[in-house]
Amino acid sequence: MTHVASAFYGSFFHAPVYGSFEYLENALIEVDERGTIARVLREGEPEHAEALAAHRTRGTLTELGANRYGLPGFVDIHVHAPQWPQAALALDEPLYLWLEQRTFPLESRFADLDFARTVYRDLVQQLMARGSTTTVYLGSAHLESSIELAAICAELGQRALVGKTVMDDPAANPDYYRDASPAQAVADTETLIREVEGIGRASRQGIWPVVTPRFIPSCTDEVLRGLGQLAERYGAYVQTHCNEGQWEHDVVLERFGKTDPYALRDFGLLREHSIMAHCPYLTDDEGEMFAELGVAVAHCPMANSYFSSAVAPIKRFRQQGINVGLGTDISGGYSPSMYENIRQAVLVSRLLETGVDAQRPADERGLGDARISLAEAFWLATAGGGQSLGLPVGTFEPGQAFDLQVVDVKRRDSDLTGFGVFDQPADRLARILYLATPDNVRKVYVQGRLVRDKDAE
Amino acid sequence: MTHVASAFYGSFFHAPVYGSFEYLENALIEVDERGTIARVLREGEPEHAEALAAHRTRGTLTELGANRYGLPGFVDIHVHAPQWPQAALALDEPLYLWLEQRTFPLESRFADLDFARTVYRDLVQQLMARGSTTTVYLGSAHLESSIELAAICAELGQRALVGKTVMDDPAANPDYYRDASPAQAVADTETLIREVEGIGRASRQGIWPVVTPRFIPSCTDEVLRGLGQLAERYGAYVQTHCNEGQWEHDVVLERFGKTDPYALRDFGLLREHSIMAHCPYLTDDEGEMFAELGVAVAHCPMANSYFSSAVAPIKRFRQQGINVGLGTDISGGYSPSMYENIRQAVLVSRLLETGVDAQRPADERGLGDARISLAEAFWLATAGGGQSLGLPVGTFEPGQAFDLQVVDVKRRDSDLTGFGVFDQPADRLARILYLATPDNVRKVYVQGRLVRDKDAE
Repeated sequence: MTHVASAFYGSFFHAPVYGSFEYLENALIEVDERGTIARVLREGEPEHAEALAAHRTRGTLTELGANRYGLPGFVDIHVHAPQWPQAALALDEPLYLWLEQRTFPLESRFADLDFARTVYRDLVQQLMARGSTTTVYLGSAHLESSIELAAICAELGQRALVGKTVMDDPAANPDYYRDASPAQAVADTETLIREVEGIGRASRQGIWPVVTPRFIPSCTDEVLRGLGQLAERYGAYVQTHCNEGQWEHDVVLERFGKTDPYALRDFGLLREHSIMAHCPYLTDDEGEMFAELGVAVAHCPMANSYFSSAVAPIKRFRQQGINVGLGTDISGGYSPSMYENIRQAVLVSRLLETGVDAQRPADERGLGDARISLAEAFWLATAGGGQSLGLPVGTFEPGQAFDLQVVDVKRRDSDLTGFGVFDQPADRLARILYLATPDNVRKVYVQGRLVRDKDAE
Repeated sequence: MTHVASAFYGSFFHAPVYGSFEYLENALIEVDERGTIARVLREGEPEHAEALAAHRTRGTLTELGANRYGLPGFVDIHVHAPQWPQAALALDEPLYLWLEQRTFPLESRFADLDFARTVYRDLVQQLMARGSTTTVYLGSAHLESSIELAAICAELGQRALVGKTVMDDPAANPDYYRDASPAQAVADTETLIREVEGIGRASRQGIWPVVTPRFIPSCTDEVLRGLGQLAERYGAYVQTHCNEGQWEHDVVLERFGKTDPYALRDFGLLREHSIMAHCPYLTDDEGEMFAELGVAVAHCPMANSYFSSAVAPIKRFRQQGINVGLGTDISGGYSPSMYENIRQAVLVSRLLETGVDAQRPADERGLGDARISLAEAFWLATAGGGQSLGLPVGTFEPGQAFDLQVVDVKRRDSDLTGFGVFDQPADRLARILYLATPDNVRKVYVQGRLVRDKDAE
């Protein structure tokens, strides 16, 4: 039996069920020595007062404090770590120029481990400063710097899934930046799996390897087949881009006579908790296949606007029973903030519903019935991410890892109190999700451990 | 002849011409005692070094400092001041519920001057903390608190245009919150004009009154006619909502047998520098009329997504020669940040261009050729606002008011340096516009005077 090591007292928001949120006012969350939630005691429950008093006496109580709320740490399931230095850049460019002139030259620099360390440390810290406690990373095509990224996450205390990007096709990738051969790419990925599993075992919060073909157009058949076999052999996570844009859709269809999702499936890359980024072009049939296999969609609402010419229909995906999480997609999306991506997820879903061009009749420009609510977007960023990854994160429930961000709603330049007007829990949560700045996030805990404390700085 | 009182040395970005930006590296901006820019000296110009040395000797030099850039203060041309306490709330509601259950009850509270003072002081300070140096406000329907808003802006040093919202139709507005009669509404507006003109004359930066019918459906013919006459008599600014949504469009067409813009014109409300918020439904003909009259569109990209079921075609508006500025539209938009609205302006223009629903053919879902660039959005937020209002603000040019925000690109939780990668001026500006948080904005000057200094706090 595990021992209750500490307890957190305050008011918390989370979203255990898609479509609603729960407000735990003056609740007590008990956490065991491994950082797992042991009990959640609501105010008024028989044991609440007694347990609160006991923790106070023992000195094991942390109080969130006045004007503060606890939210689950965010789960960001799609981040290109080596693209962090170009976040916000060249979003006016078409994808091929963006790759050739910016992304490939930049990512190639991560052969330099010192450069990689500098960038990756900053990225992990910036994400945590904004409340992200679990992140799924695509590294560069380099084995060493990708392992280093996993080590940095372990050291800084962030829960992470880390892959080395595979891009081996000489016809599709520049000579200065690609895997040497399919065999080398598979061998490097296998080394990454073993090394990162080792880093994960030594960590408190967990670090996992991810098999990471960039996307089908970057890869040879041989490497895709080899990576599928590796994923099967190690029971590893898989991540890639899927159905992101029309060009990708057409290229894959021409090459294989089947669409992107079916091609990925047939290479063994669609497994339970495989993470498919973007997917705005996913058809109903493909969606059903995703739901059956337990594949997850990483919804990246910012990147959709820049690179997809369409918005992923998340409402339909959820109705089909697909696991969906939210991704910042640095740097296809510009922002490291899951708050900003929650806002975008809601906003673009409204435009997907109504359409955009007022000169077309209202019923001929949008999809209709496509909006997602703020509570749904909050779920995507927390519980939905946990469900997508099959990890016990994203809610405040017994058995879940205790990942917490403490939000102060009364900061000088960001007062989220509403001056006492409209002060229902839904209003408080809406203000936090729509209006919080990085400065409102004061403390961040991962697996019960304080990993960032802005109050102490 | 005016006397050069001070000078600012550093690197500046501005956008005097729509579609591009200008980078002034190590420039010297001389400002006279009234806060107007007297000279802009670029590095390498004959008088640059001499003037720099002279200001240093005289102690009249302010240096922006390392890792800092100067941007023009933002010009936010559409803000509902009394809606600040409900920013971020109820954006899932249809417009009529949003008005009935939230907005009208909230705005009615601004009969209480103490409440108004608390909210308005906070709002003005939050906007300035995010770099907004000129703001166009709609007050509540109350005369006194609207005058108080103007006084608060004068005191805190923000340049402002302030109106008292007129909504007199008993059939369209709740009894607890509307003008007592058309005559009273016109009389109150006239009082507001005189009082605010007085406040403006006593201010350094300028405060102006604005004739402010809420929108046609809230107003009787009599009041619209009276307000048009007032605007003419005093040469006053006018602001209202125009062509925001299908419902408004249909109601006005039914009532007058002509569309919203023509009805407003015929009441005398479309004058040079009249500010028409939203306008996604503006036709080509109506746009030409706007361009001829010098009417300005306040583009509110966030609010479009929630309340318009369409995106305003800004590229077309600019091609037609319409003045366009940017508005946060608190609280139809949730964010007080013009940075976030610049980002949204770009992002929704991409979706307007491509459409949103991937199940429709690519050429049948969007408007095509509708995107605006980041530099264009920057112009909208600065020079475009100044042009819309006919005020000398928004650029660093001789004769313009010196309104400056100083952006520090090297803050612990928001490093915008890009680690030395892609370090062209366009990259630096893109990082600032896409990634700056309120914390990156360190100092704000209006009319040459320091109105916020976070470094000193």
